[in-house]
Amino acid sequence: MDKSLIAFILACVIPPFCLFTTLPSLQLQWRIVQSSIFSFVAGVLAYKLIPTIAELTAAAGLAGTDLNKRGLKQTENKKIPESLGIVTSVVFLVCVILFQLFQWFSFPEAIQLSEYNAALTSICFMILLGFSDDVLNLRWRYKLILPMFATLPLLVAYAGGTSVVVPNITFPFNLRSVLGQVFDLGIFYRIYLLLLAIFCTNSINILAGINGLEVGQSAVIATSIIIHNIVELRLHYSSLSQVVDGVLNQTLLPASPHLLSLVLMIPFLFTTLALLMHNWYPSRVFVGDTFTYFAGMCFAVVAILCHFSKTLLLFFIPQILNFLYSVPQLFGLIECPRHRVPRFNPSTGKMEAIPTNLTILNLFLMIFGPMTEKRLCITLLIFQGFCCAVGFGLRYYVADYFF
Amino acid sequence: MDKSLIAFILACVIPPFCLFTTLPSLQLQWRIVQSSIFSFVAGVLAYKLIPTIAELTAAAGLAGTDLNKRGLKQTENKKIPESLGIVTSVVFLVCVILFQLFQWFSFPEAIQLSEYNAALTSICFMILLGFSDDVLNLRWRYKLILPMFATLPLLVAYAGGTSVVVPNITFPFNLRSVLGQVFDLGIFYRIYLLLLAIFCTNSINILAGINGLEVGQSAVIATSIIIHNIVELRLHYSSLSQVVDGVLNQTLLPASPHLLSLVLMIPFLFTTLALLMHNWYPSRVFVGDTFTYFAGMCFAVVAILCHFSKTLLLFFIPQILNFLYSVPQLFGLIECPRHRVPRFNPSTGKMEAIPTNLTILNLFLMIFGPMTEKRLCITLLIFQGFCCAVGFGLRYYVADYFF
Repeated sequence: MDKSLIAFILACVIPPFCLFTTLPSLQLQWRIVQSSIFSFVAGVLAYKLIPTIAELTAAAGLAGTDLNKRGLKQTENKKIPESLGIVTSVVFLVCVILFQLFQWFSFPEAIQLSEYNAALTSICFMILLGFSDDVLNLRWRYKLILPMFATLPLLVAYAGGTSVVVPNITFPFNLRSVLGQVFDLGIFYRIYLLLLAIFCTNSINILAGINGLEVGQSAVIATSIIIHNIVELRLHYSSLSQVVDGVLNQTLLPASPHLLSLVLMIPFLFTTLALLMHNWYPSRVFVGDTFTYFAGMCFAVVAILCHFSKTLLLFFIPQILNFLYSVPQLFGLIECPRHRVPRFNPSTGKMEAIPTNLTILNLFLMIFGPMTEKRLCITLLIFQGFCCAVGFGLRYYVADYFF
Repeated sequence: MDKSLIAFILACVIPPFCLFTTLPSLQLQWRIVQSSIFSFVAGVLAYKLIPTIAELTAAAGLAGTDLNKRGLKQTENKKIPESLGIVTSVVFLVCVILFQLFQWFSFPEAIQLSEYNAALTSICFMILLGFSDDVLNLRWRYKLILPMFATLPLLVAYAGGTSVVVPNITFPFNLRSVLGQVFDLGIFYRIYLLLLAIFCTNSINILAGINGLEVGQSAVIATSIIIHNIVELRLHYSSLSQVVDGVLNQTLLPASPHLLSLVLMIPFLFTTLALLMHNWYPSRVFVGDTFTYFAGMCFAVVAILCHFSKTLLLFFIPQILNFLYSVPQLFGLIECPRHRVPRFNPSTGKMEAIPTNLTILNLFLMIFGPMTEKRLCITLLIFQGFCCAVGFGLRYYVADYFF
């Protein structure tokens, strides 16, 4: 296995694990361990299934040439199986469903079935849409409309508040004196959540084009979310006097939705890493819209259910930058080709920027000069990790200043 | 449009409508009318979308030759688009989700979100599996395992009782004196529901092979379920004194799960009839496993949520007969070809039985002699309707004798 891949996987798994050991309640730790065991098995299963299903997708015509290997003899004309996100996402669903069943046997009162099932419906519908898109090459209008419908069950089940804390800004005028300390956005809060889901599903999809990037960035974001959840759980339970000798008052467990987020994000991380092992440079499989839509919806779902949508947007800084930079091209001001990837130069083996393709891939190549595909991917993943770290800083230090 | 098709559609729509008008509560009627309006729009949308999506499925290689038209010049070598169940099922999902949203605006307290969303998860997962199967040609072991997982969210959310009323049988011994009047099956009841879902999804799939049969039988079963729901609602609300001048005490509404079944079955019927218009002899589109799995799961879901699984099995008499008759072939005692359809004779234009293919299609041809494909389909649909009527008789008259 590639050394940089091993380093990346360790970087995704070790920090959450270290933080996990500092959680105050043994009972809470035990539930996270159970989820991790389920997820690890799911990851192994996904890893084993991918080559088998890859043969089937290739036989079904779901296969494409690797644009950035043109002129490289050993890989020329070799078609790479597409849409392997279907394996990851279905294994993820099965894992989450089985864990739901397991939890139901152990703590029937502790799971919020209505929100949990709404989350599953939204994710499952998004997978269905992604896979249909891969197979049928849907038009843009369908792509934009269907994620909206997929998010609705979640928004109906969303039982949380629709109020926001008004930032403590006094210039140019005192915002709190106008709106009050807390302002109820009502239906507009749900519209904001809907737009968030549409943004998440599409923004990962357009930051793509080189081996391992879609899956890698999703793994980094998932790791960040897991860390955020554990930090929040720690803050939540540390302040409770009911934790005595590591035993938590069981009725308190559903109080934190961050546990719900964890039992969705841990299987997501493991199955995504399994996919990355096949998708890392040089890719043996491609992931398809199935994966990018699935990943985006998973992030949106946990952020909505656990009320950390603003924090999620901080983790999405690279996607936001890429989207803003892409705007002139997406809205047709500059010609938009089907794939907005950089140019591969077979004589140097490096990627070179195409300045008219407005993605941060090309921007990075313009700033740092030509580099190999693998190096470009690693650079962008480090940038993603850096942005998530900055996001944490903003969330835990700067936000206190405003709220 | 074909006259027999019009007659069939009217036979599906008119009886439930006549029964509907006898419901005691105007408020209840109004909610069913609302659901019907949503469903009618969904049906029209599905009807319009099918030809557009048919081009995409055909372009994706999802197309097949019509086995029963060999030798007929005008249709020879013409590939028919496959898997159009994807349109029906996605439009159905969107319709149900929008209606959920609509209900949430009008009666937020009246919808049981946990079960509703579990139902949607199960149905959506089954559509995903069916479509994957059509695209990837999955092996049998996957086909059997995945419906099981798809049913689990529903079984976890299933909040109903797990007790059964013991039949009042005194020969060879008094069953009630041994087991009591009511016997709690506990976990075995959930296992029974799981097997029911697996049976429903697969049994429609194997009673197939001629134009319009899969969709037609599903429409007949859906009609029967709707009639059953309305009859039950009528019995339920007629006995309540809270119905005064057609106004129902609103808190009573969630009491009958048959309303939940109705708002799933009405859109199912309308979208299915839209598909049938394209799938009726001679088929312009095929429906694929996507449709048969989707239909089976919808029936299983409503039967589980509304506690009428035994009644559902009475509506499934043709599928049960077909399954039992198929057993020797399904378990490999007799050679089992890929398609177990009858033989088409181009010189007479009629279908002829192949006695080694053990399906009720061939059995009917053996009993009634060769007939055209359309006539065979109509005969089988009439048989389906007859069996459902017998099922009603057993449910409402004979069952009283035993329970």
